[in-house]
Amino acid sequence: MREGAQEPPPSPWGAARGRDEQRRVKREAVLRTAAQLFNEKGYLASTLDEVAERLNVSKPTLYYYVDSKDAILFECVRTGLAMLQAAIQGVDAQGGRAIDKLTAAMRQYAQIVTMDFGMCVIRVGEDPLPAEARQKLRRMKAGLDHEFRELIRQCIAEESIAPCDPKLAAFTLAGALSWIGRWYRPDGGLSPSDIADQTIQLLFTGLQGRPTVQPRRKS
Amino acid sequence: MREGAQEPPPSPWGAARGRDEQRRVKREAVLRTAAQLFNEKGYLASTLDEVAERLNVSKPTLYYYVDSKDAILFECVRTGLAMLQAAIQGVDAQGGRAIDKLTAAMRQYAQIVTMDFGMCVIRVGEDPLPAEARQKLRRMKAGLDHEFRELIRQCIAEESIAPCDPKLAAFTLAGALSWIGRWYRPDGGLSPSDIADQTIQLLFTGLQGRPTVQPRRKS
Repeated sequence: MREGAQEPPPSPWGAARGRDEQRRVKREAVLRTAAQLFNEKGYLASTLDEVAERLNVSKPTLYYYVDSKDAILFECVRTGLAMLQAAIQGVDAQGGRAIDKLTAAMRQYAQIVTMDFGMCVIRVGEDPLPAEARQKLRRMKAGLDHEFRELIRQCIAEESIAPCDPKLAAFTLAGALSWIGRWYRPDGGLSPSDIADQTIQLLFTGLQGRPTVQPRRKS
Repeated sequence: MREGAQEPPPSPWGAARGRDEQRRVKREAVLRTAAQLFNEKGYLASTLDEVAERLNVSKPTLYYYVDSKDAILFECVRTGLAMLQAAIQGVDAQGGRAIDKLTAAMRQYAQIVTMDFGMCVIRVGEDPLPAEARQKLRRMKAGLDHEFRELIRQCIAEESIAPCDPKLAAFTLAGALSWIGRWYRPDGGLSPSDIADQTIQLLFTGLQGRPTVQPRRKS
């Protein structure tokens, strides 16, 4: 899947793009560069001077696109959460068996947390932000959690997974999948897709199980 | 298990305690109070004034026991990691089957992250700290990860779990168990022990599995 799938990709028309579109693309570049920096160094240790430096622009130029470091973090985390939301709502809209929806949602979740904005949700999150911003982002997180619990309930109802506490199962899945955003390194040997497949297999069949649903792909 | 099991509990001798022991107990109270505050409000939003207020002492009094807010966080996270380390090394020293050691280590891990210092490892962690402190704590985390991988390797060798990538399996377990420290609320209806049992069962038998190793206790 493509990062930022919930928005149209940068236009290929170069200089012919409208002013709004150019501004949107540049703002996205500022946010993405900041997310990468936050993910690498942590939020506190990152400065807007470094963001500007990486983009080869002056710091005042940044302020044409964003208001503050806090506003950047809010937007990075919000975008990551919106991607996760779009993923789970997208699979839900496709219809079909709940187990297939759950599997597809888990696969997308695992891959989104290896991308800049999704990783920022996991590595930085809303904690450094003022109370109001924190609350908005936490409501989005609660919504995601709710969607996972609902899919798990549907899987239990259709008997494609064993009866369990949907709350606890949703947290177990979210924990294992979110952790990928903490440890994933692009040079770590496993692709996001392989990591997703193997983690999902482990969660479905358990440490003691044998592969039944998610055959492991050759890496 | 008792929190701070790696250290002797506060002495019951009251005023008869030696000066060093009194100092140790008071320092521990400062650290624990700070950990609770950090876990509730986040590190940035917490002040030493609030720590002092909760302890009914003046802020200058705090400095008799700790050097700075950063030093407090370092010590809280270090203590939490030391508890996790002691737990996994303790079960390893007991001998027996690797699967029993792994299960015991997972159960202790799940419970420690619901306690003040263990929760601080998960909710705050080393990110707000200067580079040197971060590195020390990350080395401790890497050590823990190594111990989990080693236990998983032993389980595969004794054929008590299915063959898998020990690195990926260790991350999956650590993610699911660490997440408990994020969502656990003392008033949430499930005890740490119940949460540990159910999460471990889910990780061993998978969403599709049937209980074979960890019978779920009545809550």
